[in-house]
Amino acid sequence: MTEVKSYVALIVQKYGGTSVADADRIKNVARRIAATKDKGNQVVVVVSAMGDTTDELIELAYRVAREPGGRELDVLLSTGEIVSSTVLAMALRDMGYKAISLSGAQAGIHTDSAHSQARIKKVESKRVVTELEKGNIVIVAGFQGVTGEMDVTTLGRGGSDITAVALAASLGASVCQIYTDVDGVYTADPRLVPDARPLVEISYEEMLELATYGAKVIHSRAVELGELYDMPILVVSSFTQNTGTLIHGGASMEVRNKVVGIARDLDVAKITIVGVPDRPGIAAAIFQPLAEAGISVDTIVQNASIDNITDLTFTVTKGDLAGAMRVVEPIAKLIEARECVSDSRLGKVSIIGTGMQNTPGYAARMFEVLSGQGINIQLITTSEIRITCIIDEARVEDAVRVLHRAFKLETGQ
Amino acid sequence: MTEVKSYVALIVQKYGGTSVADADRIKNVARRIAATKDKGNQVVVVVSAMGDTTDELIELAYRVAREPGGRELDVLLSTGEIVSSTVLAMALRDMGYKAISLSGAQAGIHTDSAHSQARIKKVESKRVVTELEKGNIVIVAGFQGVTGEMDVTTLGRGGSDITAVALAASLGASVCQIYTDVDGVYTADPRLVPDARPLVEISYEEMLELATYGAKVIHSRAVELGELYDMPILVVSSFTQNTGTLIHGGASMEVRNKVVGIARDLDVAKITIVGVPDRPGIAAAIFQPLAEAGISVDTIVQNASIDNITDLTFTVTKGDLAGAMRVVEPIAKLIEARECVSDSRLGKVSIIGTGMQNTPGYAARMFEVLSGQGINIQLITTSEIRITCIIDEARVEDAVRVLHRAFKLETGQ
Repeated sequence: MTEVKSYVALIVQKYGGTSVADADRIKNVARRIAATKDKGNQVVVVVSAMGDTTDELIELAYRVAREPGGRELDVLLSTGEIVSSTVLAMALRDMGYKAISLSGAQAGIHTDSAHSQARIKKVESKRVVTELEKGNIVIVAGFQGVTGEMDVTTLGRGGSDITAVALAASLGASVCQIYTDVDGVYTADPRLVPDARPLVEISYEEMLELATYGAKVIHSRAVELGELYDMPILVVSSFTQNTGTLIHGGASMEVRNKVVGIARDLDVAKITIVGVPDRPGIAAAIFQPLAEAGISVDTIVQNASIDNITDLTFTVTKGDLAGAMRVVEPIAKLIEARECVSDSRLGKVSIIGTGMQNTPGYAARMFEVLSGQGINIQLITTSEIRITCIIDEARVEDAVRVLHRAFKLETGQ
Repeated sequence: MTEVKSYVALIVQKYGGTSVADADRIKNVARRIAATKDKGNQVVVVVSAMGDTTDELIELAYRVAREPGGRELDVLLSTGEIVSSTVLAMALRDMGYKAISLSGAQAGIHTDSAHSQARIKKVESKRVVTELEKGNIVIVAGFQGVTGEMDVTTLGRGGSDITAVALAASLGASVCQIYTDVDGVYTADPRLVPDARPLVEISYEEMLELATYGAKVIHSRAVELGELYDMPILVVSSFTQNTGTLIHGGASMEVRNKVVGIARDLDVAKITIVGVPDRPGIAAAIFQPLAEAGISVDTIVQNASIDNITDLTFTVTKGDLAGAMRVVEPIAKLIEARECVSDSRLGKVSIIGTGMQNTPGYAARMFEVLSGQGINIQLITTSEIRITCIIDEARVEDAVRVLHRAFKLETGQ
């Protein structure tokens, strides 16, 4: 007789805070997990804290301390995911399934000691594997890890996504499913573009280029991890039965519509140093002090110089504008630039798609569409899979809509 | 030159849930801790969960599962004390003090694996000592421990008291201070007897005999631990500046007022098996099955037998009465007893005091006082330091008041 050993797939699922916001939703999530288990899969689940728990804990911390940060805050916040993971395990056990909850530490999520934004150093998934072998559904508290000194850390906002992909990679899972409150990754923000469409698939790089819009769907560090370990990530709604969006690096990327999505970012401010003497070391003289002041500079554009004088423009977030001006103005004087001007009423619109670098004309088409709407382009930056225009913030939403239509994203053709 | 090394006392303080119910109370508690530290003491603090947190977590558990007990419930409940310990540490740090929170596991509270009512097996206080040596005020999450398999356990209701006394004993503290919402241990329940008086001191045994009333002030297992390790326990209010009650085993016990307090218990039901043939093995035949059914029997009274027939009476809690009758009735038939009768409308009143066993007349005085009020005594039991009468539950409060007056407890003379 031939023994046929059936292939058991290992699936990692992550449920966000809105998916486990109350007892009824937790029971609903438990039923989804049970259905996955019933299909013969091994299941590891990563959960976020219930609803607004994290915000409430932060508020509590600020009621007793002006700067509650660091070790104590991380331990405090980590309780939110402990609560949701234990309650979800209880709900599954009540349905007759074997389930166990594990803290980040118990699940072997080892991080550096950068509290509130720790990075995962390694995942020692031995305990998870042991519990899976016992037939348990393993519920892991997301967002948290532990240092070598066994102090609890947290991974920053959206950190449960990172936990999920890291565990999936460590366990060699078939797929990491991110359950959230949207139907997947859209061609544009659906609140802005009513006929925006959820994508069936998207590449890791494209997903990363979706930037701030994408970050609302899944943490960018989770996408980076997925790319690094070639772990397919399915973004899918926990409230509907839709199929969601698969983020992967597969081959079918090459043959489809070149522009996959339109992204926007309204948090853009610009500083231009006018009349900069164009000599070596000037750029370093300006950007080194900004970096030391902890200010992230995004786009940098330097015009061709005329008579050895040039203009240097860069963008920062609106919140960093005042601080950046305080750093830059004395330097501008020192290097005998003419003046510093700033503009905080800007935004970004980007078209994103893997195929673009090999196909000319996308940039031209984008500029044409914007100018056809009377939208003035202030700065342009590009990557291999993205073309970004910085424009008046008041026109960003118009720009998203008109580009979405021009590249026929509503039909997917 | 002579170097004088000042003596640093180590004090363990425990704050209950009402003492840390909100941010303002936590700051208030932080100020008390700071004042203790400012006097040059090393301070270890054990905290309960904030306000009704534990009840809310239990409610959440029951919303997703019919029987949420065991491992998962313990992990869930343990988060309540993690929250309060971290927030208290933040409040102290905000005031400029060095402070660190530790979970039960980090503080080395090792227990058996009897979830929801674990017993402490040992305390490995190395980490606590290390943190004290670094100059930290150490805030320990109460109520919780950890098994050999690093699974979280809880010690049962009021378990933070046990954590505090166990830590104090392990660390060789000078005193374990239990901060609560009452001014100490009273001569009787002050809600019942308006002129009840907080005692300056009480012995461990007396405190244990205060039974249900005492249990509202401090967990009896904490008192037992205190007695075992001869650790003085100060019960004191976190809302006033009163001096509280010292529970200890000291010598001054001998010379003071003999009756220290009046206790009551309204949760008493009685079963009498009438006409029991008085032969060997009968008691075992009755009480063995009750024990196997998990029913705790309190008082047992067997009258002298007449013509080899006796009556056997015992008490259980009211909640256990129906179950006890189901066990006992078939046995009564089997041993050919006449009948089983029960009464669930009973209560207990006790006078407590270490001196009583060497001084005759206390029992007689108690019976006289009760009969003078027309209160009928149904059963009497005594220990070395306690005399208890079981009476109609409707007369228990009267009995407490009249005994409190008769033994002059309001004046302490």
